[in-house]
Amino acid sequence: MAGTLFTGLCAFPLTPADSDGVVNTRAFAALIDRLCVAGVDSIGILGSTGLYAYLDRAERVHAVHAAVEAVAGRVPLIVGIGALRTSWSVELAREAERAGAQGLLLAPMSYTPLTVREVAGHYRAVAGATALPLCIYNNPGTTGFTFPDALIGELAHVPGIAAIKMPLPEGDDFAGEIGRLRKLVPQGFRIGYSGDWGAAPSLLAGGAAWYSVVAGLLPVEALRMTRAAQNGAAAETARLQAAFEPLWRLFQAHGSLRLMYGIAERLNLDVEEPPLPIQKVDAPTARALDAALDQLINA
Amino acid sequence: MAGTLFTGLCAFPLTPADSDGVVNTRAFAALIDRLCVAGVDSIGILGSTGLYAYLDRAERVHAVHAAVEAVAGRVPLIVGIGALRTSWSVELAREAERAGAQGLLLAPMSYTPLTVREVAGHYRAVAGATALPLCIYNNPGTTGFTFPDALIGELAHVPGIAAIKMPLPEGDDFAGEIGRLRKLVPQGFRIGYSGDWGAAPSLLAGGAAWYSVVAGLLPVEALRMTRAAQNGAAAETARLQAAFEPLWRLFQAHGSLRLMYGIAERLNLDVEEPPLPIQKVDAPTARALDAALDQLINA
Repeated sequence: MAGTLFTGLCAFPLTPADSDGVVNTRAFAALIDRLCVAGVDSIGILGSTGLYAYLDRAERVHAVHAAVEAVAGRVPLIVGIGALRTSWSVELAREAERAGAQGLLLAPMSYTPLTVREVAGHYRAVAGATALPLCIYNNPGTTGFTFPDALIGELAHVPGIAAIKMPLPEGDDFAGEIGRLRKLVPQGFRIGYSGDWGAAPSLLAGGAAWYSVVAGLLPVEALRMTRAAQNGAAAETARLQAAFEPLWRLFQAHGSLRLMYGIAERLNLDVEEPPLPIQKVDAPTARALDAALDQLINA
Repeated sequence: MAGTLFTGLCAFPLTPADSDGVVNTRAFAALIDRLCVAGVDSIGILGSTGLYAYLDRAERVHAVHAAVEAVAGRVPLIVGIGALRTSWSVELAREAERAGAQGLLLAPMSYTPLTVREVAGHYRAVAGATALPLCIYNNPGTTGFTFPDALIGELAHVPGIAAIKMPLPEGDDFAGEIGRLRKLVPQGFRIGYSGDWGAAPSLLAGGAAWYSVVAGLLPVEALRMTRAAQNGAAAETARLQAAFEPLWRLFQAHGSLRLMYGIAERLNLDVEEPPLPIQKVDAPTARALDAALDQLINA
């Protein structure tokens, strides 16, 4: 089963939770089951889309246990363990391992901006505390930390650090970035991408994985494009990418997390409400979303 | 006592806590007592320097109660209630009010970048949930959110929102910024500054308060400069600012939070260790800090 860990389509479900941050495990299990049925390559819970930053440690552990049970061994499960304290990420890593997850995703979550030395220490401490393979979650837009290439190269050689989830590169130069990073990382280290609108070109350029927000709710459509790109079917990939295009524009304008709540509403899926202060999109955007989904689902 | 709320020198102590984030209330009370004895105008606990982002809600409430007891009514106490969920900030505001604090400090802490509409909703919800006056904590460097002037003007008219703690302005144009903002806010709304190296010019330009990191450990030195600037004694202010200068350069280079742990060590004050991943400064920086403190304390 670990064969598809950190490769192919990793789908990130929302974590349904009430206004105090208490996880609705029944609704969460239903979202996870849909992803297993669709046949995604892995499921990434408690990523940015899975509200890891908005749930306290007890609720995060609660969610991990619910997810392991819902997945029931059908798909590898990756758990986001980012936290502001190293001790908290270590604790969450151990809890995920104990619960039966297959992999970990660690963002250098920060409040006081972190130095390179501090981020290196954080990753080494967490990787050393667990037997699970760990993916570096590189997301400057939420963490405020930009990984220098040299740090990626250093961490890629730490035992247990097996992959990186990259943000979209400057100028969409996926091939250039993958080539540059491959010189710094060991053979077998997986370089994948997030930023859904760049998924198709990243996979065509040899990216190992699409860490996908939209696949958390639309796994069938995301899988279709993933398989086309993995097969090098450039024309079919372009056709599917065009069908996604109106949705990508909304993701870029309003943030993919807010749109996910709108998509769930349209699909009649129970995901509770976004965690205030984060709000759902306004009515005009919801109407634009309806049109974008029509175009996608009829593609 | 509320006469000096959001004016003059507000000192921000560290919150001593162990490696799991459990507050050492005895050490915390000792830090707070020093500030009361020095006669600072207010104490701001659980600000960025007070590790609010690195303590869970239970420990934050624990710290508030310890601080109220330690202050014993000698100085107004302002409590940082920033949190990623609106519901958590509301809860913390109510706990601070119940415990006996005099004011609140609210940062738009964020992970997913927030919209202006979301930040406005967050402040209105928290201000509406408490009778305590609230200061807007405007700190883009840690929260990732930049307040447009129009939002400051809007929030300054919300009942209960009484003050703003500003970051240092572009080009150090304090007088220009204060003049511009005063046109947008009601009479009596207090505009103060953080960023210790800009405190002297901000007070000389009419800033209402210095929200001071360094005063959390060096209240006597910070008060001397505050009073000089408040009295318009430009030459004496410049002399004291020059004495602080080597310390400000270290704050700018390494982040004031890291330096505070070094200052505490030098003063033989128990503050425990910084919250990993944040590390203490290295040995050469600690030596430079020694020299900077010598210059300051002999000034």
